[in-house]
Amino acid sequence: MTTTVRLPLVNRDRLLQSIEDLSNIGRLPQGGVRRIAYSPEDCQARHWIHGQMRDSGMDVRIDTAGNIIGRYPGQQDDLPVLATGSHIDTVPSGGRYDGAFGVLAGIEVVRSLHDQGHRLHHPIEVMVFTDEEGSMIGSKGISGRVFPDPEYYRRPNGEAIQTCLARIGGNWDYIKQAQRQPDEIAAFIELHVEQGPILESMEKQIGVVEGVVGQHRYQITVLGQENHAGTTPMYMRCDALVAAAKVVLAVNEIATMPGQQVATVGQMQVYPNAANVVPGKVEMSLDIRDLSNLHIDRLLAQLHLHIQEIAIATNTKISFERRLRNEPALAETHLQDMIAQVSEGLNLSYTYLPSRASHDAQELANVTDMGMIFVPSESGLSHSELEYTSPDECVQGANVLLHTLIRCDRHYLNPDRATS
Amino acid sequence: MTTTVRLPLVNRDRLLQSIEDLSNIGRLPQGGVRRIAYSPEDCQARHWIHGQMRDSGMDVRIDTAGNIIGRYPGQQDDLPVLATGSHIDTVPSGGRYDGAFGVLAGIEVVRSLHDQGHRLHHPIEVMVFTDEEGSMIGSKGISGRVFPDPEYYRRPNGEAIQTCLARIGGNWDYIKQAQRQPDEIAAFIELHVEQGPILESMEKQIGVVEGVVGQHRYQITVLGQENHAGTTPMYMRCDALVAAAKVVLAVNEIATMPGQQVATVGQMQVYPNAANVVPGKVEMSLDIRDLSNLHIDRLLAQLHLHIQEIAIATNTKISFERRLRNEPALAETHLQDMIAQVSEGLNLSYTYLPSRASHDAQELANVTDMGMIFVPSESGLSHSELEYTSPDECVQGANVLLHTLIRCDRHYLNPDRATS
Repeated sequence: MTTTVRLPLVNRDRLLQSIEDLSNIGRLPQGGVRRIAYSPEDCQARHWIHGQMRDSGMDVRIDTAGNIIGRYPGQQDDLPVLATGSHIDTVPSGGRYDGAFGVLAGIEVVRSLHDQGHRLHHPIEVMVFTDEEGSMIGSKGISGRVFPDPEYYRRPNGEAIQTCLARIGGNWDYIKQAQRQPDEIAAFIELHVEQGPILESMEKQIGVVEGVVGQHRYQITVLGQENHAGTTPMYMRCDALVAAAKVVLAVNEIATMPGQQVATVGQMQVYPNAANVVPGKVEMSLDIRDLSNLHIDRLLAQLHLHIQEIAIATNTKISFERRLRNEPALAETHLQDMIAQVSEGLNLSYTYLPSRASHDAQELANVTDMGMIFVPSESGLSHSELEYTSPDECVQGANVLLHTLIRCDRHYLNPDRATS
Repeated sequence: MTTTVRLPLVNRDRLLQSIEDLSNIGRLPQGGVRRIAYSPEDCQARHWIHGQMRDSGMDVRIDTAGNIIGRYPGQQDDLPVLATGSHIDTVPSGGRYDGAFGVLAGIEVVRSLHDQGHRLHHPIEVMVFTDEEGSMIGSKGISGRVFPDPEYYRRPNGEAIQTCLARIGGNWDYIKQAQRQPDEIAAFIELHVEQGPILESMEKQIGVVEGVVGQHRYQITVLGQENHAGTTPMYMRCDALVAAAKVVLAVNEIATMPGQQVATVGQMQVYPNAANVVPGKVEMSLDIRDLSNLHIDRLLAQLHLHIQEIAIATNTKISFERRLRNEPALAETHLQDMIAQVSEGLNLSYTYLPSRASHDAQELANVTDMGMIFVPSESGLSHSELEYTSPDECVQGANVLLHTLIRCDRHYLNPDRATS
């Protein structure tokens, strides 16, 4: 442990100032940030990041998926890279930490090493992934998992993906060239705000992420019989909303069974949605997440049985349509252990927890060893202008990232040896 | 009973032709009708009705509420009138029977009497009420219950009520003059399609309406806590949609308790309504109807208790706001008996039933004795292009109306005598 504490720490003020500076690009009146992917604000922020990377001693390139990749050479520059990074695009009304913090901490880690003329054995790459909040096309480009139809990536505002990528220096036609091979990247470590309340409620400073949960999303459609809400006696109704209400409670039931899963009906549309008409149709979303696909499948099997009973009892038809299936992405256990040991070495409290939100790290896990570090989010708020992580917590997270990369540098030189 | 069958019947072909003719004004491609109040189609239909009334021996006037009133003189023309009628406006995608049938049958009844040079002791008035499908301003004008603020009656398309009434010959400024006094109208009998499935399912030809149910409408608002559907563990959620689902089932529970009530949640809006966000707010409608206000109040008291428990269990706030309260309007029992006896005399099967839809008759009940006659609606469908009542059923209903008016004529000459 003594080696750890002798090692350098990041520059606190410079890190905090960079968070402040980036938050001014796309700033909203109440302190939040709107920096939607490919927007003028996003382009301006990308330009600014470019400069920061160069000032930190990195060579900067943009791959065909539009990812900004800053490379800090290693003592043995032909070794696979140690990679970190996150994203700088935001939701329409987001905070200043989601994504941006991981990018800026990565740059600060490199700059701290660079200041002291220190190089790791491995090169370091800081990656800024394109459009995390929307398509994750940046990290999917690197994992080689971009869906080949450009229409799939057309923006909500109607813009073609070709136009968008060209604007930021990418190129849809050659997007396959963004793919990285397993032997090019030794490990990828993402630092991110938790976006949930677990660390705060457990009073822990660092979260050692066990993996990014898998996320299955379905559209559930209930078909009943639209009828006059006055003239149709109760016993003759096939009320789609009554059935849908039972489905919502059935979802809540599987969500609250033993396990770490969450399941949510977040969206519901009632047709025709008039006070004096018995609903004939209800469409709703089901979102279910867990680290284990097997567990999700078991819960869904129970839900299906329950829903069949509901359909019979309410004389409705209930159908499922899959909308999304993201596989769970597990963090490497040796990287989890490393992050835990680093936290201990820095006298920071920590806990293991799953990430229940999606992150670029889940794509990188398809290519390389993946690890993730969380810092607390006040009240668990994210995707909100109220998002907040304290200066101390930001600096603590950046130091854990720095020391984890240093540990990785040793580990991946001789990966067969234990990390301790 | 022998007197009844000796009396005249309406002209079957002429009645059916008039239904066909009127349905051509505002006809939709699939056979339905769009004749929204005050629209060009409504105006054209009103003009056509005017002509039909005159051809049937009636004097026609338009009152300040825009109601078309055709008057067929009586042998004792200073007696209070026997009134019948309904409306000819439709919902945006309606059928040809709702309202129009009652108006056309009323005109046909008068024309049948007129053909044979027959007059009742009492004058007959056939009333076409303004905007039944929207504000019921026509029948409210006659009952003197128009709300005094013209903004309340502004049309969904933004038009002022003054403009609309002026277009059809009414006058907002003098709308109080439309009010009729109890001594002017001896009784009002409305003939209408059931708009529900009871008669068809019981295989009855005529419905003797016991009254128009009272209708209470509320907006229920559930306030929870909006949160990320991935990162918020189940035990930390205040999911407004889970609470709302329990409320929907609680409403269904009181609706299916013993009694004739119906209760419906027809409208629901979820906020922010995104698949990956735990709902923070849900707004929904509650519509409850019964012939007895006392019964409604008892059911609502039970619902309130249940909803308080739901709010506590789900850690949400649930509030009620009254949006509408229409009092029940009971049909006079002697008019019910009369309609039943007339049906028997015409060898038509009948049943007593409440009207669970609103009708102009409920307003007229504030001024005079009210009775209502229903004929079957195929599959209970109404407010639909598929609305259908067979030619035989239409003719049967018109004959019941004719003979009920003839019975009323005797009854109200000497109202203290029994009607049999």
